[in-house]
Amino acid sequence: MSYEVKSLNEECGVFGVYGHKEAAQVTYYGLHSLQHRGQEGAGIVSCHQGKLLGHRDLGLLSEVFKEEKKLQRLQGSAAIGHVRYATAGNGSVDNIQPFLFKFYDTEVALAHNGNLTNAKTLRGELEKSGAIFHSNSDTEILMHLIRKSQKEDVVDKVKESLQQIEGGFAYLLLDKNQMIAALDPYAFRPLSIGQMKNGATVIASETCALDVVGATFIRDVKPGELVIVNDEGYHIEKYTEQTTPAICAMEYIYFARPDSNIAGVNVHRARKTMGKKLALECPVEADMVVGVPNSSLSAASGYAEQSGIPYEMGLVKNQYIARTFIQPTQELREQGVRMKLSAVRGVVEGKKVIMVDDSIVRGTTSKRIVRLLREAGAKEVHVRISSPPLKYPCFYGIDIQTREELIASRQTVSQMCETIEADSLGFLSEDGLIEAIGLKFDAPYTGLCMAYFNGDYPTPLFDYEKEYVASLKAYPDVINTNGLIATYKGERS
Amino acid sequence: MSYEVKSLNEECGVFGVYGHKEAAQVTYYGLHSLQHRGQEGAGIVSCHQGKLLGHRDLGLLSEVFKEEKKLQRLQGSAAIGHVRYATAGNGSVDNIQPFLFKFYDTEVALAHNGNLTNAKTLRGELEKSGAIFHSNSDTEILMHLIRKSQKEDVVDKVKESLQQIEGGFAYLLLDKNQMIAALDPYAFRPLSIGQMKNGATVIASETCALDVVGATFIRDVKPGELVIVNDEGYHIEKYTEQTTPAICAMEYIYFARPDSNIAGVNVHRARKTMGKKLALECPVEADMVVGVPNSSLSAASGYAEQSGIPYEMGLVKNQYIARTFIQPTQELREQGVRMKLSAVRGVVEGKKVIMVDDSIVRGTTSKRIVRLLREAGAKEVHVRISSPPLKYPCFYGIDIQTREELIASRQTVSQMCETIEADSLGFLSEDGLIEAIGLKFDAPYTGLCMAYFNGDYPTPLFDYEKEYVASLKAYPDVINTNGLIATYKGERS
Amino acid sequence: MSYEVKSLNEECGVFGVYGHKEAAQVTYYGLHSLQHRGQEGAGIVSCHQGKLLGHRDLGLLSEVFKEEKKLQRLQGSAAIGHVRYATAGNGSVDNIQPFLFKFYDTEVALAHNGNLTNAKTLRGELEKSGAIFHSNSDTEILMHLIRKSQKEDVVDKVKESLQQIEGGFAYLLLDKNQMIAALDPYAFRPLSIGQMKNGATVIASETCALDVVGATFIRDVKPGELVIVNDEGYHIEKYTEQTTPAICAMEYIYFARPDSNIAGVNVHRARKTMGKKLALECPVEADMVVGVPNSSLSAASGYAEQSGIPYEMGLVKNQYIARTFIQPTQELREQGVRMKLSAVRGVVEGKKVIMVDDSIVRGTTSKRIVRLLREAGAKEVHVRISSPPLKYPCFYGIDIQTREELIASRQTVSQMCETIEADSLGFLSEDGLIEAIGLKFDAPYTGLCMAYFNGDYPTPLFDYEKEYVASLKAYPDVINTNGLIATYKGERS
Amino acid sequence: MSYEVKSLNEECGVFGVYGHKEAAQVTYYGLHSLQHRGQEGAGIVSCHQGKLLGHRDLGLLSEVFKEEKKLQRLQGSAAIGHVRYATAGNGSVDNIQPFLFKFYDTEVALAHNGNLTNAKTLRGELEKSGAIFHSNSDTEILMHLIRKSQKEDVVDKVKESLQQIEGGFAYLLLDKNQMIAALDPYAFRPLSIGQMKNGATVIASETCALDVVGATFIRDVKPGELVIVNDEGYHIEKYTEQTTPAICAMEYIYFARPDSNIAGVNVHRARKTMGKKLALECPVEADMVVGVPNSSLSAASGYAEQSGIPYEMGLVKNQYIARTFIQPTQELREQGVRMKLSAVRGVVEGKKVIMVDDSIVRGTTSKRIVRLLREAGAKEVHVRISSPPLKYPCFYGIDIQTREELIASRQTVSQMCETIEADSLGFLSEDGLIEAIGLKFDAPYTGLCMAYFNGDYPTPLFDYEKEYVASLKAYPDVINTNGLIATYKGERS
Repeated sequence: MSYEVKSLNEECGVFGVYGHKEAAQVTYYGLHSLQHRGQEGAGIVSCHQGKLLGHRDLGLLSEVFKEEKKLQRLQGSAAIGHVRYATAGNGSVDNIQPFLFKFYDTEVALAHNGNLTNAKTLRGELEKSGAIFHSNSDTEILMHLIRKSQKEDVVDKVKESLQQIEGGFAYLLLDKNQMIAALDPYAFRPLSIGQMKNGATVIASETCALDVVGATFIRDVKPGELVIVNDEGYHIEKYTEQTTPAICAMEYIYFARPDSNIAGVNVHRARKTMGKKLALECPVEADMVVGVPNSSLSAASGYAEQSGIPYEMGLVKNQYIARTFIQPTQELREQGVRMKLSAVRGVVEGKKVIMVDDSIVRGTTSKRIVRLLREAGAKEVHVRISSPPLKYPCFYGIDIQTREELIASRQTVSQMCETIEADSLGFLSEDGLIEAIGLKFDAPYTGLCMAYFNGDYPTPLFDYEKEYVASLKAYPDVINTNGLIATYKGERS
Repeated sequence: MSYEVKSLNEECGVFGVYGHKEAAQVTYYGLHSLQHRGQEGAGIVSCHQGKLLGHRDLGLLSEVFKEEKKLQRLQGSAAIGHVRYATAGNGSVDNIQPFLFKFYDTEVALAHNGNLTNAKTLRGELEKSGAIFHSNSDTEILMHLIRKSQKEDVVDKVKESLQQIEGGFAYLLLDKNQMIAALDPYAFRPLSIGQMKNGATVIASETCALDVVGATFIRDVKPGELVIVNDEGYHIEKYTEQTTPAICAMEYIYFARPDSNIAGVNVHRARKTMGKKLALECPVEADMVVGVPNSSLSAASGYAEQSGIPYEMGLVKNQYIARTFIQPTQELREQGVRMKLSAVRGVVEGKKVIMVDDSIVRGTTSKRIVRLLREAGAKEVHVRISSPPLKYPCFYGIDIQTREELIASRQTVSQMCETIEADSLGFLSEDGLIEAIGLKFDAPYTGLCMAYFNGDYPTPLFDYEKEYVASLKAYPDVINTNGLIATYKGERS
Repeated sequence: MSYEVKSLNEECGVFGVYGHKEAAQVTYYGLHSLQHRGQEGAGIVSCHQGKLLGHRDLGLLSEVFKEEKKLQRLQGSAAIGHVRYATAGNGSVDNIQPFLFKFYDTEVALAHNGNLTNAKTLRGELEKSGAIFHSNSDTEILMHLIRKSQKEDVVDKVKESLQQIEGGFAYLLLDKNQMIAALDPYAFRPLSIGQMKNGATVIASETCALDVVGATFIRDVKPGELVIVNDEGYHIEKYTEQTTPAICAMEYIYFARPDSNIAGVNVHRARKTMGKKLALECPVEADMVVGVPNSSLSAASGYAEQSGIPYEMGLVKNQYIARTFIQPTQELREQGVRMKLSAVRGVVEGKKVIMVDDSIVRGTTSKRIVRLLREAGAKEVHVRISSPPLKYPCFYGIDIQTREELIASRQTVSQMCETIEADSLGFLSEDGLIEAIGLKFDAPYTGLCMAYFNGDYPTPLFDYEKEYVASLKAYPDVINTNGLIATYKGERS
Repeated sequence: MSYEVKSLNEECGVFGVYGHKEAAQVTYYGLHSLQHRGQEGAGIVSCHQGKLLGHRDLGLLSEVFKEEKKLQRLQGSAAIGHVRYATAGNGSVDNIQPFLFKFYDTEVALAHNGNLTNAKTLRGELEKSGAIFHSNSDTEILMHLIRKSQKEDVVDKVKESLQQIEGGFAYLLLDKNQMIAALDPYAFRPLSIGQMKNGATVIASETCALDVVGATFIRDVKPGELVIVNDEGYHIEKYTEQTTPAICAMEYIYFARPDSNIAGVNVHRARKTMGKKLALECPVEADMVVGVPNSSLSAASGYAEQSGIPYEMGLVKNQYIARTFIQPTQELREQGVRMKLSAVRGVVEGKKVIMVDDSIVRGTTSKRIVRLLREAGAKEVHVRISSPPLKYPCFYGIDIQTREELIASRQTVSQMCETIEADSLGFLSEDGLIEAIGLKFDAPYTGLCMAYFNGDYPTPLFDYEKEYVASLKAYPDVINTNGLIATYKGERS
């Protein structure tokens, strides 16, 4: 589940437990299974005897809690935790969550997965009225709104605040009386409820975290819902009735762990079915099917099963963290790529290979892998992508924020095929993807947000609107008149 | 390629390059691809203007060379490196290689993969004559022998020294004039020669390291050979004519990376064929084939392809390093296991599962995985092992040194089936394994050391003889009169 | 200048420079000379091309900026820095200064030395109106007040804010247009202005920092003043006319470096004069005068010079950081004390010793040192303290916040003499102290805050009033009817 | 006791204890008081149930044992420890002591303070006979000699080995049966025996370490003696009768802690007497006497007391570790000097200052301090050195190994006075020094090695002979025909 080969980044994972005497340790285990959702930093806040105790830092969870006492100090029977995704810059511990706020009258911890589309506007308004922010995070905005709320009750304050924010979000809030989870009105980000053997309630970004801590799955949190967990157990309220399920399709395609279920659909199974659909839509004669590890292995095995072409391990991923040094020579720079991924000469030499990947972002990675396979002796390399072309940015919590960086917003399938130097290139259709996932929700979105493929955003874009419209003008839509499959016709040196 | 689920440990990997102006960086890349052979520590020594420069430390390669300057300091056009396997205790940097010896007349670096069977005897003799050792390593013994040699020439000194040591070894030696590689007379451990585009000669434990640095494979080092690399290029000599190829079968089964070739046989391909043979020898009706990640995935796909039963991702391995805390409750202890490996409920629930693994050492891991699958809803779990039962220790460089820890030396297949709580259990036969690997050497060993399966050691055991004979008496051989397959007959709660 | 033997703690040091192209490095040097004012954490913020860049962390300055690049990144021609004092708990990086605030319209850095007496009240009010605080620091309160201010100009906002806070403070503020320094209306804490050769303006807590960076002393900041430094140079304004100079006497007695001047009086010279006055007020026959290193050496040499009794090095301080382990035996616990301070047997054996120290807080340290001297063979130990008995807490920035911990608020000089096991004990009188320092300000305070000696606080105590009055009732004032000198009359075992 | 201002370095300190159940912790305390003798690295080896346990690393003692468990692991009732001095390069943990040797038949730990003059010859001979060294240390040589010895008994082996080595040394050896201390035949390096309350025997480089652990001083180890400590207590033997006491005079002048006694003479007292003698030999009219902290404070107070001129704190040393950055500008480079040492303007301004220092090595530090004083306003600066001019290298354990670096071997007192820009310069005479220390041994050396002053080496120089003779030719002896005092006659800008 390492995605460092890719340039797509998730915006975090959250986990919370209420009613377990080792709440922080349970949270540690849960977060560990969500580490693929964020590697920049991690943190846990627990509630012990009415006081919140927290620790957070930059780095992987195992680094942040390397000293055992850091976790042991987090006593108490309720805890929330967070893993944050890796960005290039801005590596400040100030942005690592959960945030822990101490007031004269209470203490509150907050963790957040997602992205608000009206954050800049809200922050500006709040600052104008004297608010001081200490991070770049959308999480702080919610805290300010809650504190500004004139409502009496905390739950009412939270509801009023949630009604003011727009975009994709899954929040976890902890104070001395309760843990509150909240999901946006579209359910862009996944969030599930589970129960441990001792009755403790667990909330997590993915069901794999429930499994790891031995919790039974209860149900997914639904769009616009608020889950309040306290000593009486949990109950669910709605803070809005305007809800439209539109789950991020990329969770199924790429982000989520294969052992997670989202809206009742197993992720591995969805991917394998995408691979099968892809084999039907974009068939090609070849000696073997090879998946790009690790996220495309399910789709590749589906393609193989459907096509009857053997599934082989033609690419091997090195699990150990590598660092690429600033190299004086081009020769060694290329070796750097091979440190992460190797083509297996003994498998692909002299063979026609179908290389299955889950998506193409910039195209540079695909080109490198095609080259690796050819250098290892592959006679032909046919690239098959188990999702439609990525053409539009996401504003709800995935790190694709400009059209410029997306090759499919500038090139046709045929041009991309040439760019990545494949013998042929095929993408899964939008309908194929929808059918493969097989959600049963109503129109308009039948439960899936597919905006990166078709620009059909379920919400207004607010702060991003202007910039987005400008990018549409700068990069007019590319029309693939001949469908989503192309074969290279020219000659190569 | 993470094997931490297993309790089998390799004894290291070596890499050397001669004639490349960025020798240390090339070595870094090469070692990185050999990291699966050892995670306790790593080191590199380079030769710059007649002086040897080295850095070594405990930890993964990326940790040892975290500060870029540590690598940059290692200038020069020749370098050797080493990764060392993880043992529980004895975590001293003194044992990390390459060793760097500075004499009044010369400097020598030495790195070693393997285990000597007469090390204790030699060390005792050397100490009696006044030698002082600074590590527990067999590497130092060779250095003492070389220094004691009365021969004039370094190559002759090395040859004379190699003639005195017994067991499995692949050595790399670097001084200001040359790099020397040496392999034991049985070629227990793999060692290959490659050439970079600029003509530099590379020696590595596995061919995957040649690929990563962009070197072309030249040929494997053969039993009893010495490779001398200097400014004139490389040439090969023999230090003994008594050679008997007996490559460690576990390299194919478990240790080596799937993209490596050993003796011309690709490791993934060998494993897939083991899986196919296993499907023929131990068939069973089921809904799916599931491999234990990562080392058993090739065998599992082979089993699936041969049997026609779909290959599924029923087990998911978490790639991030986990730590298990000293837990007060049994409940959380079990969660610790799940941090490394998860069963995919959405895949296995209600299904009959064939779980393919490469080997069974103590049986405890197999039992845990069977339980994970059942807890995730698997209706039946049929365990298939793509190698014969492990019954005897290895003295040539693998960390199975006592019979007591091997379940198969104490239990029949039928008993093991009950122990690990499987519905059925089947092992690949010795003949099946030999055919799957398909080496073409002569008798007696046809090129493979299978001693852990049949106790047929290619060499006398020297220092280990007495203890081994005692263990045979304590644990008389278990005879599987009904073959290598068993079905559980009783009832389970 | 190491004060770890003592249980008195300063509340920080600040340093700023405007107009030097290596502003952050100048600040590093300046802060290093102020390290004695705080060892818990350190930070620097610079202004580069209109943006603020900062780094702060727990630990000594040399640890915080161990990696050179951390300082190099802080480019720009203006910078402020801060060292923070060591407290037992609460070791969170969130409290380390300077604080760096990023707003939609500006960026501001703030550093603070002192303590506000109405902080709790202000914070409560601000939180009630929706403010969110991220630290326990009084610094954040000022920032909130500034942002709430309706004034147009930054300087006016700062002035309005300063008028709302009470207590002791020296603030440094940096934004892209200017650096602003502000001192409380009593000048409890020292703050000086200097000029570097290139014309850069420097502001520092002590003049020793000006010397270290090669700046010429211009003048001290006066009570109620605001220093605005920008590209046009510096100019001084007042934010209040109600000012009463009352410099913290403990700065002279203990905190400040001996090479600093405060209000034109050199600290070493003041201390030496205290020692001379003490010799006149509390004479005793003896063989030698020994100072408790390091803060009492000046007073001890004054005592020696005045009395004509030789000054000897009878106590030696180990400069290296020691740690005391949790010891199973009492024997080794006592050795822990000796790790910091040793009595010199070869000097004191068989001698009558006058031990000069600057103050007595709890009395435990004095007792230990008396014992050390006796164990090293001293025949008599006469303790002389170069300041009056500490009886009252400080609310303006020194870490003596409860009367309970002060031995002199519970015991007479005679009782204290017995407690610390001295042969005699004498304190400097208040008048002696005032004369020794020799400030020339008007009544009521003649420039010195002596509240810890006489309970005469220059300001109302606001948030501390209630608790303080209660402590007065619990511990009624101890009257030393026989003056500040006592001789032990009883017998000792 | 921080000597980083100086360029003189000691070669280590040793400490051992036998018969205390917390031997490693006692050793930690003892070593901490010897930290001034070496800051590069530290280590401790204990003996527990017949096994030796050790930990060593680069850095200060408090860093090496930062994790408490590192010390706790070192169980057992005997332990030896070592602190090693700081050199620029060669910062390898391999050279940190004690060395821990594990043989098939025994385990031995060795620690060493000093320098052998025939080390190179011995090492060459040993290597020719097959020995392998792992460090650059003289310690390993002794171990090889011991192992080569044909004697039966360990004590006899050690004696035979000690008879083969030449130079200055104090060794501590620990095995499962005993602790052995050995001192060279000249007692160049100090070594003392003490006894703890429980009867445990302690051996330490300086008596201050005995005081810190609460041990009573028994007696100094004498030249050529061996102290054997075991379960029966300690007894003393001699390994040679050719002994000539010649204690390193620099121990009194500079290295040792003022609270230590060497050969019954207290170091502070010796220094103070040097200062008094200096005042008699080199008087000058002035306003004050200022010592260079910390090592010259005793001598300065002696000078003041003898001359009747007041002793003042005109120089202040910053106790916190500073780092000087690679500066682009000369201006900031000079500030770097001030970070370590500040002149106190409020004290020296307009005054005639006598600056007392203990020695002049290169002259650069003296020049800087003179400048600091002048920049702080001193009207005149008269430098007085409490030892004779350093003209010759030391081969017995002090880091002055070439004549070239010693200013006094190239310049007369008059020239030096000009070089360091002093108004006058005076040195203590050799006779004055000898009288001040006041040892009562016989000729030829009356107990003191003064070779750095007069070239009269008590031993042949062996491996250093050739180089030393060459340096005498290159730098012929400088004769101070006008005595050891000079006044600057010219004018200065």
